[in-house]
Amino acid sequence: MHILITGAAGMIGRKLTARLVEAGALNGRPIDTLTLIDVEAPQKPEKFTGDVVTAAADIGDAATAPAAIAGRPDVIFHLAAIVSGEAELDFEKGTRVNLDGSRALLEAVRTAGNRYRPRLVFTSSIAVFGAPFPDAIGDEFFHTPLTSYGAQKAIVELLLADYTRRGFVDGVGIRLPTINVRPGRPNKAASGFFSSIIREPLAGQEAVLPVDDSVMHWHASPRTAVGFLVHAAGLSSEQLGSRINLTMPGVCCTVAAQIAALRRLAGDKVAARIRRAPDPLVERIVAGWPRRFDPRRALALGFRAEDSFEDIIRVHIEDELGGNIVL
Amino acid sequence: MHILITGAAGMIGRKLTARLVEAGALNGRPIDTLTLIDVEAPQKPEKFTGDVVTAAADIGDAATAPAAIAGRPDVIFHLAAIVSGEAELDFEKGTRVNLDGSRALLEAVRTAGNRYRPRLVFTSSIAVFGAPFPDAIGDEFFHTPLTSYGAQKAIVELLLADYTRRGFVDGVGIRLPTINVRPGRPNKAASGFFSSIIREPLAGQEAVLPVDDSVMHWHASPRTAVGFLVHAAGLSSEQLGSRINLTMPGVCCTVAAQIAALRRLAGDKVAARIRRAPDPLVERIVAGWPRRFDPRRALALGFRAEDSFEDIIRVHIEDELGGNIVL
Repeated sequence: MHILITGAAGMIGRKLTARLVEAGALNGRPIDTLTLIDVEAPQKPEKFTGDVVTAAADIGDAATAPAAIAGRPDVIFHLAAIVSGEAELDFEKGTRVNLDGSRALLEAVRTAGNRYRPRLVFTSSIAVFGAPFPDAIGDEFFHTPLTSYGAQKAIVELLLADYTRRGFVDGVGIRLPTINVRPGRPNKAASGFFSSIIREPLAGQEAVLPVDDSVMHWHASPRTAVGFLVHAAGLSSEQLGSRINLTMPGVCCTVAAQIAALRRLAGDKVAARIRRAPDPLVERIVAGWPRRFDPRRALALGFRAEDSFEDIIRVHIEDELGGNIVL
Repeated sequence: MHILITGAAGMIGRKLTARLVEAGALNGRPIDTLTLIDVEAPQKPEKFTGDVVTAAADIGDAATAPAAIAGRPDVIFHLAAIVSGEAELDFEKGTRVNLDGSRALLEAVRTAGNRYRPRLVFTSSIAVFGAPFPDAIGDEFFHTPLTSYGAQKAIVELLLADYTRRGFVDGVGIRLPTINVRPGRPNKAASGFFSSIIREPLAGQEAVLPVDDSVMHWHASPRTAVGFLVHAAGLSSEQLGSRINLTMPGVCCTVAAQIAALRRLAGDKVAARIRRAPDPLVERIVAGWPRRFDPRRALALGFRAEDSFEDIIRVHIEDELGGNIVL
């Protein structure tokens, strides 16, 4: 089993790599080769005994995708993307990477010849949906994204489905909830504050909250997101049918409920490290985002998220903080 | 008022040109310039007293779109497309024209500078929808096209909406029903038989029906389609809101009901000119197409179709046959 990960140096890419190396197998087959690419070269996983190729390569460059699939990986995890805030500020960069880069990968697979038809797991986003919404968004709700990032993800979903229908690739698109708690430094995603308001207080630092406490959103932990990717890789074409793009389950809660969960787990002093500073750009972007889903197909296909936001915080404390909170 | 029409030599393009020349104005402003392009040069409209530029140009060629908008048309009708059957048989040609050609047009407008922001009316299609369907497809039903043509149209809808949201263009996408009765020779559209079974018998010729009589579909006349385009050109951004792609109204009926309407208007002898010859490719494509809609937004915005399939046949007899049927 040969696996290619694009965006392998990103937060999810690193956790996915670690999970695959730990398991040593995917879909019941031993992993013997990993190809890991990102704009900055991903680190080689230490414990892996098979072959590893790591490369610094921009998926938006025409030469990248054909080179990345030259070794004919059996499974491709396509995670590389310009995040929402940056894609909104830099239209051309977002288009080049999120749209043209994904399309180049699909085209490289299509034109590889010799019936090459890998499983391609694409990380889409709930940003493909745009307000106004019903109370809970069903699996057949339409895509009217209100960011260029969402539009680019929605377009790649359509390409992935058509390439899969025609037999050019064996695709699955999964619409990830907002990943929470993201470890490390904030990135340029407009959704970054959903993590900051948990991560920074738990580390003894102040966090900035740019939106109102009443903002409701859809969350899953990094551990769960990696679980979605691995599960998606193992679904059969028969299980998926023709509608291969799926909204993932998540935890729906308000910012107020996030803060209440933090207070219950870590106390008043930790929760008091959140400072309110409204940001009109972030407020405008987030206002167009979905809040709650009814993801029946994904649940029926066996995808599982956390049960509560407290569980999401517990995953962060376990996976990132070694169980330690700065009180 | 300067108007650009792509696909101007096609059936709808010629009828739209004739309607605009006849009216002499659009949105209450006199038309002084027409730019008409197509892969084969469109004919110059005889009665028009303003400036006309006609050009043979493929919208899939990179140089075409910038040249076409060099004169800064106020309104662009983007009709140019590879039809469904051909786009299914020739994936690369369909992609080049339907996707890359449309994108090139949007990019030409975006990068034209000096706050150029024309109204762009894009002809999308009900092929953006894919089975299985509810009884009547509502305005918020999702896009899971089952042809590459449908996927390409759905992608351009997303691009058009994002370019409009960002202020790069002032777009409206209208999902046309199947146009019936198409005059002239059959084209390569898989939907061609819907017209043939009316047009050929009325002209004294045999028609081939490649699907079962029970096939249900969504129809509008060419006259009505041109009416949709003109109406779309005049809608304000305020009326449209952020969801600028709209399903057009139409007449829902079965092939059996089409034939019954033909029989009522023209008699048994005419209706007997339809010969059944099932075609698996056409049957497969049509099985994935939608049948009935509940197009509330378009109706609320003033779009109007025929009331019955008999009305659709009457339009054909009036507009194409000078009132004459070959009995």
